Amino acid sequence: MSSGTTPKLHPFDPIRPEEIRLGVRILEAAFPGVSLRYNRIDIHEPIKQDVIPYIEAERLGKPLPPRPARLLYSYFSRLDTGIYLKALMNADTKSLIYAKALPEGVQPPMDIDELAAIEEHCMKHPAVLAEIEKLKLPPGMTVCTDPWMYGSDNPNETRRLFQCFMYMVEANHPENNHYSLPCKFSPVFEARTGNLVRMDYLPGGADHKTVETQPWTPVKGVQYAPDLMDEPLRSDLKPYIVQQPDGPSFSVDGNSVYWQKWRFRVGFNNREGLVLYNITYDRRNVVYRLNVSEMTVPYGDPRAPYHRKQAFDVGDVGFGLNANQLSLGCDCLGHIKYFDGYRSNSKGEPIHLPNVVCMHEQDNGLQYKHTNYRSGAATVKRNRQLVLQMICTVANYEYIFAYILDQAGNIELDVRATGILSTVPFDNLHGQTVQWGTNVGPGVMAPYHQHMFSLRIDPAIDGFNNTIYYEESVPLPEDENNPYLVGYTTEQTVLRNSTAADLNIPKHRVFKIRNDNISNPITYKPVSYKLMTAPSQMLLLPKKAIGYKRAEFASRPIWVTKYRDDELFAAGEFTNQSKQASGVETWVQRNDGTENEDVVLWHTFGLTHNPRVEDFPVMPMERISVMLRPDGFFTKNPALDVPPSTQVFNKSTLHSEPTASCCAGTGGSKAKLYKRVD
Amino acid sequence: MSSGTTPKLHPFDPIRPEEIRLGVRILEAAFPGVSLRYNRIDIHEPIKQDVIPYIEAERLGKPLPPRPARLLYSYFSRLDTGIYLKALMNADTKSLIYAKALPEGVQPPMDIDELAAIEEHCMKHPAVLAEIEKLKLPPGMTVCTDPWMYGSDNPNETRRLFQCFMYMVEANHPENNHYSLPCKFSPVFEARTGNLVRMDYLPGGADHKTVETQPWTPVKGVQYAPDLMDEPLRSDLKPYIVQQPDGPSFSVDGNSVYWQKWRFRVGFNNREGLVLYNITYDRRNVVYRLNVSEMTVPYGDPRAPYHRKQAFDVGDVGFGLNANQLSLGCDCLGHIKYFDGYRSNSKGEPIHLPNVVCMHEQDNGLQYKHTNYRSGAATVKRNRQLVLQMICTVANYEYIFAYILDQAGNIELDVRATGILSTVPFDNLHGQTVQWGTNVGPGVMAPYHQHMFSLRIDPAIDGFNNTIYYEESVPLPEDENNPYLVGYTTEQTVLRNSTAADLNIPKHRVFKIRNDNISNPITYKPVSYKLMTAPSQMLLLPKKAIGYKRAEFASRPIWVTKYRDDELFAAGEFTNQSKQASGVETWVQRNDGTENEDVVLWHTFGLTHNPRVEDFPVMPMERISVMLRPDGFFTKNPALDVPPSTQVFNKSTLHSEPTASCCAGTGGSKAKLYKRVD
Repeated sequence: MSSGTTPKLHPFDPIRPEEIRLGVRILEAAFPGVSLRYNRIDIHEPIKQDVIPYIEAERLGKPLPPRPARLLYSYFSRLDTGIYLKALMNADTKSLIYAKALPEGVQPPMDIDELAAIEEHCMKHPAVLAEIEKLKLPPGMTVCTDPWMYGSDNPNETRRLFQCFMYMVEANHPENNHYSLPCKFSPVFEARTGNLVRMDYLPGGADHKTVETQPWTPVKGVQYAPDLMDEPLRSDLKPYIVQQPDGPSFSVDGNSVYWQKWRFRVGFNNREGLVLYNITYDRRNVVYRLNVSEMTVPYGDPRAPYHRKQAFDVGDVGFGLNANQLSLGCDCLGHIKYFDGYRSNSKGEPIHLPNVVCMHEQDNGLQYKHTNYRSGAATVKRNRQLVLQMICTVANYEYIFAYILDQAGNIELDVRATGILSTVPFDNLHGQTVQWGTNVGPGVMAPYHQHMFSLRIDPAIDGFNNTIYYEESVPLPEDENNPYLVGYTTEQTVLRNSTAADLNIPKHRVFKIRNDNISNPITYKPVSYKLMTAPSQMLLLPKKAIGYKRAEFASRPIWVTKYRDDELFAAGEFTNQSKQASGVETWVQRNDGTENEDVVLWHTFGLTHNPRVEDFPVMPMERISVMLRPDGFFTKNPALDVPPSTQVFNKSTLHSEPTASCCAGTGGSKAKLYKRVD
Repeated sequence: MSSGTTPKLHPFDPIRPEEIRLGVRILEAAFPGVSLRYNRIDIHEPIKQDVIPYIEAERLGKPLPPRPARLLYSYFSRLDTGIYLKALMNADTKSLIYAKALPEGVQPPMDIDELAAIEEHCMKHPAVLAEIEKLKLPPGMTVCTDPWMYGSDNPNETRRLFQCFMYMVEANHPENNHYSLPCKFSPVFEARTGNLVRMDYLPGGADHKTVETQPWTPVKGVQYAPDLMDEPLRSDLKPYIVQQPDGPSFSVDGNSVYWQKWRFRVGFNNREGLVLYNITYDRRNVVYRLNVSEMTVPYGDPRAPYHRKQAFDVGDVGFGLNANQLSLGCDCLGHIKYFDGYRSNSKGEPIHLPNVVCMHEQDNGLQYKHTNYRSGAATVKRNRQLVLQMICTVANYEYIFAYILDQAGNIELDVRATGILSTVPFDNLHGQTVQWGTNVGPGVMAPYHQHMFSLRIDPAIDGFNNTIYYEESVPLPEDENNPYLVGYTTEQTVLRNSTAADLNIPKHRVFKIRNDNISNPITYKPVSYKLMTAPSQMLLLPKKAIGYKRAEFASRPIWVTKYRDDELFAAGEFTNQSKQASGVETWVQRNDGTENEDVVLWHTFGLTHNPRVEDFPVMPMERISVMLRPDGFFTKNPALDVPPSTQVFNKSTLHSEPTASCCAGTGGSKAKLYKRVD
């Protein structure tokens, strides 16, 4: 059977609408006469050993071997039995590889249509309407709901459940901040039947006590939309325009990007969102695959029903599904290139997701400078960067993920948390506080929580077999080699088998990835990259808590595994209502050999977020950065050939003052240093 | 006697040329008939208790009290005896407060004229010329020298000494990289007499052995100047222009700056360089004084004479003296305002230092965003920042210090290390390596070292009496209050007495500064700012090493002292050839009460720099960030009134593709989410 998909599709390209339709056709053929509901149809990760010859031929400019198969997967259910299945399909041969039922109690992620349906169902349910009635809201005020994944507190739970958190709507405005006015009741629904399983009541005070729904005591909500705020907008912010009159320095061919010796492919899928593939610098391999593989947000309010609040925003829903459709000039400044994606709806119809990834250059100040103080001559290079960005809205929160490449071989992940805190009702009008949260407005509190991210780095430092090790800086012993006591050196520890590992700042422990087969002719050591980690507090949950077992990736900052095709997600494939993880903590137990092998490094980092009142009603971003930096990969500074920074090129303007300012000179010439003022 | 200085000068303003001349006249009058040589004449820190009423009146718009005296200080020497003295003078009364001789062995900093004289003297000295002769250099090659502070290894040393590191000059070019070709001899001179104290020989191999100077075996230097490099410059970098067609959002009146509710004064002095004074937000006090008070760079090569390599770039020389004169469009992009400084030469003549500080706005991506997923409406605010920047060249190295204010009450210090590694000769052409350094080129090695900075924060959180404390995030006990095991809380520890303290990432220890006298009406807690530290390895030197005793500030990340006017410099006033420090480690021993007092917080952070070959011949910047963030200072997000980000304002451009891209929509409307692709 000949390939029917567009010949130009690369193994790493996102799913196309025709592939979504193909998946539906394959499954309908496999289940004749059965009505199916599609939770997801998306591209599946290609088989790495099949991909490598293809991308290596691309890299070396050689004739291409046959393109590896494009694989698709689907989570879907049979409307007759309600059973969930996973299917794997070959888009090239248009065939089903397998379709198997998920074990009982294993839940696929939430899907968009399902969430919309739960929301509608909740707002019409008689028990919910009855609770709303008890609030005795002023005329014009309504109630809305944010459906949440139910989480886990019972290892025997098999029902698919949703917890609907309820909020009062103060203003009929598209940006009303309902999070300011949370309700004290919260229905739990079973997804399949729509049954109300339970009406939870939320504690109103600082203790665990709950009461029946009472009439609401009106308080003013805290709003962020400009026309709902009392304060006028600042009027003294002047425009800051970025222009690239000669166009950008990047070039794009489909999802393939070239910029300043970097070459890579932009991937996008429903679950992980933005993925960078096959990153090479000057035709040398650096990284095979890079992305945020999971995240979890456990909450620290100990009271029911909050004990189940622990979102897994990749596995429970999907970054790709939640990725904002970005707006020119709003989200991104300068000369912007957008990439699109697609998803399926529950009927298997493709839905276009335009502008889910943006790409543009930015200037990040000085990259390097040296002034020769004798001559005053200076060389200045500015730090031009390439940014690939995705913004995910997960109900209240936003996460901005930016991958940043620069001209010196560095790859950075910049994560910004913003959006709206998750809030709970709290009677705090008379000085009350809690020890696990912050008052953020009248009647509303934001509980403490953690945001834990897993960055998955599948390295390819000059090749696909690498070794991960760490180096520590330690004083030399006080002996005849170190008579003045000043000496220090570095000690290396190779991670020979799959394992978890910790950071150690007092010893300046640095994790590095090297290729034992390729030696640097200047340093005489294997070529290497180092990881600048984001040292963070790990999971606060105790080991016996179900939330710890579900998110064990977040208990250690470093995990090293040997590559396997189906091991992409730090907490495992199915996180929604999981009882425990099936991810890195499981895989390292194999104790695979990881020295000079196809290895994967997983870095857990995060933010213990004890909310500030300044984080409400919308949070000024808090930024975390992780970076890969070359460390003996090159033979000298790789950015030496970047053109120097000049005024002719940059066209800065001088702020003029009433008093004439003296000449703006170059560097710091001695002549100028000695110029007398008469 | 009436005040003769310009009435517009503020107590925080940098020294003026007429004040330098005034200082000379005062000292000449105090030492009639004695020839004096001026090491430094500069502004002295005003008396805080005199300043506060003045700046508070300014802040509150009240009638100003008499302006506190402008104080000047000088380090100078008598040419007859060679003795060094320090003088303190009152510029308003034009009088000498005191002039006292420095204790024997206490050295003032190096000064510019002295360094130039040592350099010239070294290059003419017969012993040096004799060593150069032995090199038998090819015709056209010369030798140059970087004079260094001598450092310390002898508690009884009283001579003022310089160590001249020597380098071969490959090309007669203003940017020849002499650091690539270090010589193996290094003369030590006594400053006063010019006597050659000793000719040191540097080890050529991996051990401590030194030999007589041999003929040089030519190797090629590693160059960074474009016309000295083999590689052509990249030709595909397109211009990136920042324009502010309506001008900047800041306004400036002398050294007073207003921007987006921030108001502060730009200070500048020879020693510390850029200092920010009297930072207020929306007329509320935040910080009294902010700057980098000291830094030290100890080297880890254990062998003589490197054991004495430990620069104190603030105290030994001075950031202000080393500040680059910045160039429009080279160092700074956009609409730039420059500030100037002045210094004195050895004759007491004022020397203008133009453009030593630059100020401009920049855009740092998104500040906050929230998309209401039901309506698809989104509010986006961009992160406009104000940058104040100083670049210091300390012989081979550059340090870029940028203070960054934003619209959400945050104050960041961004430190970038760049410039050229300090190098030593090493015979490495045949695979040799050392355990305390990195080969960076043929015949040249860069030893391991640390860069340790002290950020001095004199806070004024809503007033001048503050309390410093830390908070840790800890699990709640597993009891009836925490039946599901998920609960966690924060525990506070107040620093009641002056002390040193450590970081603790596993407990998410956060240092905060609060005003116990002012309560936040929403959180019911004292208004506060928190410090986002840069966790770093501390000094590797052992406690008994003289380098540790000289730089004890760098042994702990946090120091808290009670304010005293003469306690500005973390290692003490005189660091050049010091035997031990006289700074924070001394002051905390007083055990002053620091709760609800005028306190100072000193944060030591840094970089254990084990050089990469990529750091040569010029280092791509390595960045460290420290930030002060409001934490219950405001009653909600202080940036809510920033105008939303719009295309009309930002004028981004869309990258066009051959295939038409779909409409760029707003946020993520449900309608768009469900749009079918036919």
